[in-house]
Amino acid sequence: MIRVAVVGATGYAGAELVRILAGHPDAELAVLTSRQYAGVRFDRVYPAMAGKIDSVCREYSTNMVCEEADLVFLALPHKLPMAYVPEILQRGKKIVDLSADFRFKEARLYESVYQPHTAEHLLESAVYGLCEIYTDQIKAAALIGNPGCYPTSVLLPLIPLLKAGLLNPGSIIADSKSGVSGAGRSLSLTSHYCEVNESFKAYKVAAHRHNPEMNAILSREAKMPVSITFVPHLVPMSRGMLTTIYATPESGVDRQTVVDCYRQAYHLKPFIRLCPEDRLPNTLHVRGTNFCDIGFKYDEHNRRLILIAAIDNLVKGAAGQAVQNMNLMQGLDETAGLSDVAFPV
Amino acid sequence: MIRVAVVGATGYAGAELVRILAGHPDAELAVLTSRQYAGVRFDRVYPAMAGKIDSVCREYSTNMVCEEADLVFLALPHKLPMAYVPEILQRGKKIVDLSADFRFKEARLYESVYQPHTAEHLLESAVYGLCEIYTDQIKAAALIGNPGCYPTSVLLPLIPLLKAGLLNPGSIIADSKSGVSGAGRSLSLTSHYCEVNESFKAYKVAAHRHNPEMNAILSREAKMPVSITFVPHLVPMSRGMLTTIYATPESGVDRQTVVDCYRQAYHLKPFIRLCPEDRLPNTLHVRGTNFCDIGFKYDEHNRRLILIAAIDNLVKGAAGQAVQNMNLMQGLDETAGLSDVAFPV
Amino acid sequence: MIRVAVVGATGYAGAELVRILAGHPDAELAVLTSRQYAGVRFDRVYPAMAGKIDSVCREYSTNMVCEEADLVFLALPHKLPMAYVPEILQRGKKIVDLSADFRFKEARLYESVYQPHTAEHLLESAVYGLCEIYTDQIKAAALIGNPGCYPTSVLLPLIPLLKAGLLNPGSIIADSKSGVSGAGRSLSLTSHYCEVNESFKAYKVAAHRHNPEMNAILSREAKMPVSITFVPHLVPMSRGMLTTIYATPESGVDRQTVVDCYRQAYHLKPFIRLCPEDRLPNTLHVRGTNFCDIGFKYDEHNRRLILIAAIDNLVKGAAGQAVQNMNLMQGLDETAGLSDVAFPV
Amino acid sequence: MIRVAVVGATGYAGAELVRILAGHPDAELAVLTSRQYAGVRFDRVYPAMAGKIDSVCREYSTNMVCEEADLVFLALPHKLPMAYVPEILQRGKKIVDLSADFRFKEARLYESVYQPHTAEHLLESAVYGLCEIYTDQIKAAALIGNPGCYPTSVLLPLIPLLKAGLLNPGSIIADSKSGVSGAGRSLSLTSHYCEVNESFKAYKVAAHRHNPEMNAILSREAKMPVSITFVPHLVPMSRGMLTTIYATPESGVDRQTVVDCYRQAYHLKPFIRLCPEDRLPNTLHVRGTNFCDIGFKYDEHNRRLILIAAIDNLVKGAAGQAVQNMNLMQGLDETAGLSDVAFPV
Repeated sequence: MIRVAVVGATGYAGAELVRILAGHPDAELAVLTSRQYAGVRFDRVYPAMAGKIDSVCREYSTNMVCEEADLVFLALPHKLPMAYVPEILQRGKKIVDLSADFRFKEARLYESVYQPHTAEHLLESAVYGLCEIYTDQIKAAALIGNPGCYPTSVLLPLIPLLKAGLLNPGSIIADSKSGVSGAGRSLSLTSHYCEVNESFKAYKVAAHRHNPEMNAILSREAKMPVSITFVPHLVPMSRGMLTTIYATPESGVDRQTVVDCYRQAYHLKPFIRLCPEDRLPNTLHVRGTNFCDIGFKYDEHNRRLILIAAIDNLVKGAAGQAVQNMNLMQGLDETAGLSDVAFPV
Repeated sequence: MIRVAVVGATGYAGAELVRILAGHPDAELAVLTSRQYAGVRFDRVYPAMAGKIDSVCREYSTNMVCEEADLVFLALPHKLPMAYVPEILQRGKKIVDLSADFRFKEARLYESVYQPHTAEHLLESAVYGLCEIYTDQIKAAALIGNPGCYPTSVLLPLIPLLKAGLLNPGSIIADSKSGVSGAGRSLSLTSHYCEVNESFKAYKVAAHRHNPEMNAILSREAKMPVSITFVPHLVPMSRGMLTTIYATPESGVDRQTVVDCYRQAYHLKPFIRLCPEDRLPNTLHVRGTNFCDIGFKYDEHNRRLILIAAIDNLVKGAAGQAVQNMNLMQGLDETAGLSDVAFPV
Repeated sequence: MIRVAVVGATGYAGAELVRILAGHPDAELAVLTSRQYAGVRFDRVYPAMAGKIDSVCREYSTNMVCEEADLVFLALPHKLPMAYVPEILQRGKKIVDLSADFRFKEARLYESVYQPHTAEHLLESAVYGLCEIYTDQIKAAALIGNPGCYPTSVLLPLIPLLKAGLLNPGSIIADSKSGVSGAGRSLSLTSHYCEVNESFKAYKVAAHRHNPEMNAILSREAKMPVSITFVPHLVPMSRGMLTTIYATPESGVDRQTVVDCYRQAYHLKPFIRLCPEDRLPNTLHVRGTNFCDIGFKYDEHNRRLILIAAIDNLVKGAAGQAVQNMNLMQGLDETAGLSDVAFPV
Repeated sequence: MIRVAVVGATGYAGAELVRILAGHPDAELAVLTSRQYAGVRFDRVYPAMAGKIDSVCREYSTNMVCEEADLVFLALPHKLPMAYVPEILQRGKKIVDLSADFRFKEARLYESVYQPHTAEHLLESAVYGLCEIYTDQIKAAALIGNPGCYPTSVLLPLIPLLKAGLLNPGSIIADSKSGVSGAGRSLSLTSHYCEVNESFKAYKVAAHRHNPEMNAILSREAKMPVSITFVPHLVPMSRGMLTTIYATPESGVDRQTVVDCYRQAYHLKPFIRLCPEDRLPNTLHVRGTNFCDIGFKYDEHNRRLILIAAIDNLVKGAAGQAVQNMNLMQGLDETAGLSDVAFPV
């Protein structure tokens, strides 16, 4: 059993980690921390867990966490992880950080959208935890920067095609739609029920902090600078993310080329489901699961590929992928603890 | 491994059975039948199951089912089970029937709300599958009439108090609220999205077919005639059921009497969660699970007890309880395959 | 044109007042105040009003309000109105107060659920603004205590029957279900999207502050002490309230007695719609309107009447009834500005 | 008073027409027809209209309609209008047809996505009822082909920029998101509550019948062939449509060029609201109204314009625009009967 700590256990991503890890065959929830609820039983904050988890939330301390856990999940707002990570690593513990702090190779890029980076020396060795793409690096890593939810849904359908040179790298547009849980548990008018219900809108148009994260990874994989237009939208539902990507194929690319490319890239990846031609991804089919469903259409008349990916923003887009990273880092079955399928409805 | 058949696998209750059984450690999904989708892969009807279930739906035949399965779940509209059950039983198979056909001891009562009963001789030996109440009978049964969703949410909070003589049996009112999946997958204006969304209404007021089912069981347990007023309502959500029950306590009954009665009845029951005084049941906390959360308040000023129970109508109210019945019938751990907890959100 | 002020214009009830008054043929929106948004254009807070309202929200001052308006709507949290009302009245202005501050005749009762009352001397002359019941008093009033949303949905179906002696006054239970907008625009975990969506729960069971308000009015109308059990629930929808009331009829009362009683009480009331026997109230049918739809069933077997009322909590339960009060106070057509019907869906 | 007929009054678009026309100062609802509900009072089908509309739905007959109405709204599935329109016109009545039958100038185009056209001779004189663009033609028209909901949301933001030559016509992608009412009242699994709720998906990707309609109008306005990639999505909400358009600006175009172009095109158009730079369209702000809110961002880094438009699919996307067309045809105030603003929430 791996003793794990969930730091920031009472936010939505943290609580989802707790839920998944509570059913994980090889992990033991050794420590749950929460600033806001220190001293409170976790199942009083999330009564859904009553009868399953009887732990009390604790105040974070690096010492306590390192003594009681072998692997640490950090489900904190960015900036805090930078402060904690160096010492945790030094004490020989592994880390999966769900914030943006260790997703970038270049501090400059991070700093252009977040704040000054205080642990720049660790960026080189930190691995971007997009499990299907960086599997081998993850297996060897001590520190994972777990991808953002939007990047996960954008990168998984794009990377194989870009790497294979099937897409015009200057033509890419990603139109994403996210459920509300992506905004977290912090109170805000944008997550206030009546402001969201029966509402649909775009936000942070071509200005979202996940955009540079996507560009950096796409450029690395395409081995040339790639910059995409990214527009997120908010959907009146709790969970789920669907991304529709528009890209111009290079000449000679047809439907079958794309099918073959995806098959080759993903046929051994247990969490990627390639949709048959007559079915497209739907967030309902991946709700509560670590799947990323990918489908596409070729608009021949306009010579555009339309790639569609669906994930659960809290699972494959956050906590599930974090556990998948742990599985890889620990040499476990990649799917351990992640075998849920979605409800029929 | 028990070989099981799910007859009527593509309705919502059937599909939920498939989902639960696909994760059950001791069951093997040997047969899925569907009239509407015979010949179609199950995961084409429910793409959520892609990668998990590769079975093809088959046309029902008693012979086929009995040859390939040891235990049969019937998730069919009432009337059909009456026709199939006698032969299946005769061939030595066990049955959990999710319809109303075998929930009544008296054919007359069944016939007053459904239609003529064609397998009356089996009613005596059929066991009402309310697992926490009829545990021992279920263990010995060959045929289970799986309770309706409303009755489950009404009976579990009422029976211990009624049996202990704590309630005035003439005072009971149950005001239930159900998510829309309870109406099933059949098309109907009452399940049409725009008619349900942003809508709340009562229906079949004091005229629902589950009312006689409740009265029969309550009378049996109270050992006197009990008739309750029952009013169901429709909530704009997919899953979940909350029942608010009003009853006058007998004199001398106070809060502690009720707490003690519930503890005694349910402290060993893994799916009943008694809520602490400062927390009440919420459908969100049981979504996707087999739990029944029970809480109550004592309105001392008006001398009324208010009992509240929350279940997932498709799980504890249908497929989950059906699997719990199977577990009991087969001598398995009662919770096998049913250990999911609800998502934090 | 009546010059009106909406004090507290940016809360949900205030904004709904602005919406309704912007379409009122005889009212001119002279002043909008908002503490939080003073200095900001109203349509920047509520872009729905762009092109319709170009006013800027102002800081409240009694002087300003009294100089620029003839009638003042106070859409503030309770406690503030007590402080403002005496001077506004003294300056000869009429007031419709949407808070609880002037709903009670007895300060003691108010104080038992709110806080010390600082304008007790005005309680005697203040009129409870339940328009269908206190029409004549409202016409003559200078100060209206606008009813709460729950009381409106409970009192309108109950009062005619209670006054006519058709109900056992000790038997009454009201099970109410409200949309989320009733909790207002203030941020709170209980209105956070993901906590509400796909969730159904009871809250403040037999302990809601509207309960004494209901009891006081019911007792006044029944001319004897009436105390009811009241349980509110939260529905995952923005607007709408449905109340299901259970009461034992006095002997000799049958379905027709109730129909006749309602007809007599309400046949001239433009906002009460009595539902035909085969149709029951549904919040969707009153959404965005000032209607109160009332229907009922007689559970003869258990000798219980089940009364059902549906309103829009923000309209008949707040802003619409406030405007209806203004109409009555000003001798206008009672329905002026309130002629909207609900969307088909 | 104009006597109007609503043919197909019980579908969602028809019922919305009834709602709007019931509040129209210059229109009288002379005839409501419904095949399914002939002989039934309209308010029994839509109880929201109780107390407002007491008409009975009638079986359609050209004779009856032409005798009792001056202007006819056809809210029928395509194909039926082709059969009715010639005779209605011949009898000197004006028609607003909400189907696709008279939206195309070329029968061939219509036939490529619908079926053989049986009233081809009328296509030339029929006017495409996009009110802000074809105002003068509409004023003079006898037959209006009322635009589809998707085309309305795509064309209004695009046409001014395309006409002014600000966009590369080969670069246009429209990613639309629609509420469920767009699918109408006919029962279908795709509108079944549990299949839609908590679900988000694309459908008919680059294959929707509204795509040729858009291309035809865009080509006409741009005076060159324009073909766009169009992808519709389904949002779990009843009403509302948001379209996000991606297009490459011609060189020299900056933010201000676009602002100026929109201002010039739309500053006198009462239903177009141009959003200030710091606010983007949101379906909530136009719900139940005839507004089209338009905003945009310029992604300078990638040299792409992102245009966003929000409408209510049943109002500006169907019934509201139909009434706006009537207003123009009859020389009434363009906004008559259409002055509603959206609820604050």
